[in-house]
Amino acid sequence: MDHLVESSLMGLDSHGILRLPDYVNLVLSGRVQPGGALRVVRESAVTALVDCGFNFGQVTARRMTDMACDKAALSGLGCVASQNGMHIGRVGAYVQQAALRGFVAIGMVNGPLSSQRVLPFGGRDPRLSTNPIAFGAPTAGDPIMLDMATCAMPEGKVRLAMQQGKTLPDDVLVDADAQPTHDPSLLYAKSPGALLPLGGPLFGYKGYGLSMMVEVLAGLLGGASAPSPQRYHNGFWILALDPDVFCGRERFDEVVNEMVAHLRSSTPLDPTQPVRIAGEPEFRRKREREVTGIPVAAETWRLILEAGARVGVAVAW
Amino acid sequence: MDHLVESSLMGLDSHGILRLPDYVNLVLSGRVQPGGALRVVRESAVTALVDCGFNFGQVTARRMTDMACDKAALSGLGCVASQNGMHIGRVGAYVQQAALRGFVAIGMVNGPLSSQRVLPFGGRDPRLSTNPIAFGAPTAGDPIMLDMATCAMPEGKVRLAMQQGKTLPDDVLVDADAQPTHDPSLLYAKSPGALLPLGGPLFGYKGYGLSMMVEVLAGLLGGASAPSPQRYHNGFWILALDPDVFCGRERFDEVVNEMVAHLRSSTPLDPTQPVRIAGEPEFRRKREREVTGIPVAAETWRLILEAGARVGVAVAW
Repeated sequence: MDHLVESSLMGLDSHGILRLPDYVNLVLSGRVQPGGALRVVRESAVTALVDCGFNFGQVTARRMTDMACDKAALSGLGCVASQNGMHIGRVGAYVQQAALRGFVAIGMVNGPLSSQRVLPFGGRDPRLSTNPIAFGAPTAGDPIMLDMATCAMPEGKVRLAMQQGKTLPDDVLVDADAQPTHDPSLLYAKSPGALLPLGGPLFGYKGYGLSMMVEVLAGLLGGASAPSPQRYHNGFWILALDPDVFCGRERFDEVVNEMVAHLRSSTPLDPTQPVRIAGEPEFRRKREREVTGIPVAAETWRLILEAGARVGVAVAW
Repeated sequence: MDHLVESSLMGLDSHGILRLPDYVNLVLSGRVQPGGALRVVRESAVTALVDCGFNFGQVTARRMTDMACDKAALSGLGCVASQNGMHIGRVGAYVQQAALRGFVAIGMVNGPLSSQRVLPFGGRDPRLSTNPIAFGAPTAGDPIMLDMATCAMPEGKVRLAMQQGKTLPDDVLVDADAQPTHDPSLLYAKSPGALLPLGGPLFGYKGYGLSMMVEVLAGLLGGASAPSPQRYHNGFWILALDPDVFCGRERFDEVVNEMVAHLRSSTPLDPTQPVRIAGEPEFRRKREREVTGIPVAAETWRLILEAGARVGVAVAW
């Protein structure tokens, strides 16, 4: 629940409290099985493969991140991969969690056959999920927190554009005949369109290649088969590194803050928009919304109350 | 030398034998100090920070990759970062080296202040190098081998376009006034232009964010300061993972080959261009050129002979 609220506070509404009714339905339908313990399938001082047992992804991903950080604290590195994991929400949350504990972290997420809506570069049949990459690092201020889909635009933003009646930019979507389109509703047509990898017609091999990397680390290392129907929702992979075993904590803190200042010192193209560090807009939005509150559409609120009623939870407001 | 020849065989001419005269000059000028041993600054079972002592980057990066693989063979993971490293050539060579030993690998490379030609997203003063990311994984055929700059187009390709009198596509370069340009020569003007991060005006925060990740791992973990002039040429970071400690070698081999077949099964947009796996075009080119030879421009050959003469090496041909 705090994962959803924080996502909404950070302005990442598509991964926020909007999802609450979906999660209630997942529990009622038995797809998510709350409360199960992580089962360790294989473990070493620095690695683990865990079976998430279809528990809430936010719960298991947070525990996996703590496992990776605990290992990194003892041995310099920690790396944990998953099986049978459900939807983990925004992957940036976990690299942020690791960075707040003082670690540098990379997180990646894949999805099963049923969520493969992204075309390989040069292909017309989708073969990959939006396969996001996240990166986190501690600084003297907020952590660096990158969270990006390896397709041009993640599905949630296409859905939002459709709901808001907006058109999409170039190089985001093709229709069922692999023709470029700006109409977001075509992703949800009876013959659905498909998302394009990051990079457009010239550099799309880069988004495609990054997605392949995510598929190997977040999916295959956990033993998931890309072409076979499977019940899991997200394969999650997290790596935590302790700067202390490399240049040392003190030096790292010095150079990371130098780098942040160096990047920010680039004259902005738009004088009202200073150059930002990855995650900075989200942390700023969080501080704003902690004061002003989270704007919630009437329909979203109605669905949340309804979901509460279905499970006998009175929502106070 | 074999690194340069293999790059040329793979069609990656900008990192190939073309560079030979430059390397001779680097030795003659004392910038590169051949033959030095790697000095281990800090080491654990799974990590190392090494001082490359300004030896040839290709030599030290290969040794670092072997260190990472040796550690991964014993402990599941191995991760090595560098200080005082020179130009390592194509970073894809090292993840390929690790993949051929059976490991999954990520490699990243940064550069010092003097090579920062890439704009941060939204900025007009360059603050980052082309900061490439490489990824490798073993398969039943050639390894998966991704090697991509996190800017839209690496400097070497801009230089090649200039030499061939070609124009650049959109969203690659701006001039010294931060105005978009298609003229590659403006990167080398007296008031030089700058390279743009991968992703263009809408998604350039992704290329910028990935570049920041590379800067932290390949530069800062080695203790390098982004805003300070320094003599090193490339910071190199490599991570090797043994699939055996995750889902097990046998299962990994199975699912990686399934994934490769799954991606290739996507109907191609252009019937003459089947969907490819990262690295596939390069391995195909290598097999062709092993038969047909490496095409070398007359001027390049003249410069190689001249460089040989300068150091008393007769080049046989």
